[in-house]
This record gives sequence, structure tokens and C-alpha cells, in this order.
Amino acid sequence: MTEHTDKKPPALRLRIVFGGGAMLGPGKADLLEGIRETGSIAAAARGMNMSYKRAWMLVETMNAAFRAPVVQSSRGGSAGGGASLTQTGAAVLAEYRKLQDITAEAGADRIAALQAMLKGEAGEDPPDS
Amino acid sequence: MTEHTDKKPPALRLRIVFGGGAMLGPGKADLLEGIRETGSIAAAARGMNMSYKRAWMLVETMNAAFRAPVVQSSRGGSAGGGASLTQTGAAVLAEYRKLQDITAEAGADRIAALQAMLKGEAGEDPPDS
Repeated sequence: MTEHTDKKPPALRLRIVFGGGAMLGPGKADLLEGIRETGSIAAAARGMNMSYKRAWMLVETMNAAFRAPVVQSSRGGSAGGGASLTQTGAAVLAEYRKLQDITAEAGADRIAALQAMLKGEAGEDPPDS
Repeated sequence: MTEHTDKKPPALRLRIVFGGGAMLGPGKADLLEGIRETGSIAAAARGMNMSYKRAWMLVETMNAAFRAPVVQSSRGGSAGGGASLTQTGAAVLAEYRKLQDITAEAGADRIAALQAMLKGEAGEDPPDS
């Protein structure tokens, strides 16, 4: 049962497509989290192997889509500027992470059923063993 | 409250990333459904604006990833061949659709909270009105 200990558990990637066309998925959520942790859009981008240009584009897209900006940034200065999440940005990230937790929990049985149908998963035991 | 009647409700797109690297997302699920409905990989691909080559590649990827093939196909003949879901393919599609229903239901409050933070959503009324 534990013969595949080198395998990570399945992950559920979520993308919300809002009616007006706005989207929120793993990339934007991870970028918000990286900005919160590093205080810098550039550092957050580096941590994700994302270009600075793309990170800026995603931040500007989110800032334009939400009622209030999600990231506030200051350019220049001796510290090279910095960025932080606004109250809205922190709320967006928190809601997305809660959504991940809730859906992973609610869908665990279905995900396990799908995994059990994969080759090499769960050995040769039936799924209910 | 109903001023945005032209907008679709938010949709949740799910991609399962299994530990061994296999992935199952909206494209593969819609392709399986199209094959079930049309009896043809080519017709299913056309219905999704997907190239026949890509559809075949996705089918072969799934056939290799699961313990049993998900699609069985016959080439040639006067009918130009056909394709249908195997029992495994039907089960994979059914589990994925159940997962969509379960996660959409479980995550509805979080998705509504995110939507309420978007510009132009829910008018100027507070989210609980």
C-alpha cells in the first residue's frame, strides 16, 4: 500500500472563470502569496520562475479587475521599491486558499476513485482494500 | 440585482494533477464527452475547435495512463471508423463530472465572496443584500 512513497498525493488545480471574463487560478494566487512573503513583485516572480513582465501584467490585470487594487507597490528608492498585498489582495488570496481546502476535502473520494483507475496506482489491490 | 443578466455564472475549472504526473482537466473531460455523444474522435474534436491531431494525442495519453483504455476506435470502413468510450472511459468521465458538481456546490460561498469583490459585480450592494 505504501510502495509508491516517492509519489506526491494528487493535487487539484482550480481556475475560477467569472461571468464577466475575469479569471483567478493557481498562477495569480501563488503570485499574491509570493508578494506577501517577499514584499517584492520581482522576488515573487523569481520564486515562481515567472518573468517580471508577466508578473507585472498579472498584477495589473488583477488590480483592474477587482473593486480595489490587490497589490500596492512603490518603485525606486534605495531599497529598490517594494510591494505588498492590500486588504483586498489578502482577502482574495485567503478566499482562494479556503476554496482549495474546501474542494480538496469535498472531492477527495472522487479524486481517489480516479487515481485508483490509473496504471500503477494503488498496486493491484482493489480500490476499497 | 439582475442588471447583469447577460453575464454567465462563474464556472470552476478543475485540473487534477496526479502524483505520477498524469493530469485530467476540462479538455480531456470534454473530449471524452464529445466522443460519447458523437461516436467519433474527429467530430468530438471539431465540436471543441480542437485539431484532430491534438484530440488523438489526448486520447492516446489517456489510454496509456489508465489501467484500461478509455476510448476504443476503429479506423476505415464505409462509415469512416468510429470511436466510443470503454467502461473505464465512461467511469473516468462520470467521476470527473461528479467532482465538478461536488466542488461547485462545496465552494459556492467562497466563489460568491470572490465574485463580490470584482468590479461591476453585484452592483453597489453589499454582498449580503
